[in-house]
Amino acid sequence: MTELAAIGHVRSPHRTAADTPIQARLTPDTAGSIEILPEYLPGLEGLDDFDYAWMLTLLHLDPVVDDGTDPLRPVPFLATDPDQHVGVFATRYPARPNPIGLSLIHIVGVDGNTVEFSGVDVVDGTPVLDIKPWVPAFDLPHRSPEPGFEDLRIGWYRDSKLGRR
Amino acid sequence: MTELAAIGHVRSPHRTAADTPIQARLTPDTAGSIEILPEYLPGLEGLDDFDYAWMLTLLHLDPVVDDGTDPLRPVPFLATDPDQHVGVFATRYPARPNPIGLSLIHIVGVDGNTVEFSGVDVVDGTPVLDIKPWVPAFDLPHRSPEPGFEDLRIGWYRDSKLGRR
Repeated sequence: MTELAAIGHVRSPHRTAADTPIQARLTPDTAGSIEILPEYLPGLEGLDDFDYAWMLTLLHLDPVVDDGTDPLRPVPFLATDPDQHVGVFATRYPARPNPIGLSLIHIVGVDGNTVEFSGVDVVDGTPVLDIKPWVPAFDLPHRSPEPGFEDLRIGWYRDSKLGRR
Repeated sequence: MTELAAIGHVRSPHRTAADTPIQARLTPDTAGSIEILPEYLPGLEGLDDFDYAWMLTLLHLDPVVDDGTDPLRPVPFLATDPDQHVGVFATRYPARPNPIGLSLIHIVGVDGNTVEFSGVDVVDGTPVLDIKPWVPAFDLPHRSPEPGFEDLRIGWYRDSKLGRR
């Protein structure tokens, strides 16, 4: 189908998969950075005005391998029972048909082609496919009344047509 | 880099891009479904126990085209100023270096190879790349006190090691 191309790579203190936490939000204080390839630098404009963003990565260390178990029904890392198989689409397990990782990162700052962030759940060198700003109106389940995320910085969206819907 | 393969396709009432809302959460009541390809059916096991999930799609209608403007600095649909260019990584604009869409969907039910959901922001026939369960511990910015999403169904995660962290 479509060929992916890295827009940059993660610099992370985690050197091996075994050393890496399973989700960014579980290690919110661990610092990392994304080094964006020079040709994508203009795409970072305005990202500094957001507190949180999604980082989409290529989970390059976790190819689906045929080890006799069904790769569509892994035993998740967080399972309490070692025989608890769950459908892969009901897990965040890294070995997936399309190995795309989704991490919520806290943007600390953008300096040139470097995005400094906290909340690192991927190994050093992981290819980054995309960065998308976290926006409450898009990324929260519908709640009434809405929960308290109004203080978070959401860049240009704050004054966009979104406020007029 | 890595070749993507659709795991299924979206059935949506939106037939054209112009007819399609910009984000799933802005049309929370519009019903759609994902038809999973038969070979990925085992991966759906347990998804029915979640209220919300991420749907990753291939935004196949929005290739980055060279029309003279910088594709890395589009004018977002929600901009209030028609000359307001923003770095693409500070937007959810669909034409991106890696055209992967991220939609938060409300799972209504899973019936065979069909995932019924509400909150449709993609056009009929859009290829689906991945489904990941929405889990507050992974997908919410850190808040203290934590906001009220405790009532949402999060399947096997409720009794997983996550509760023991």
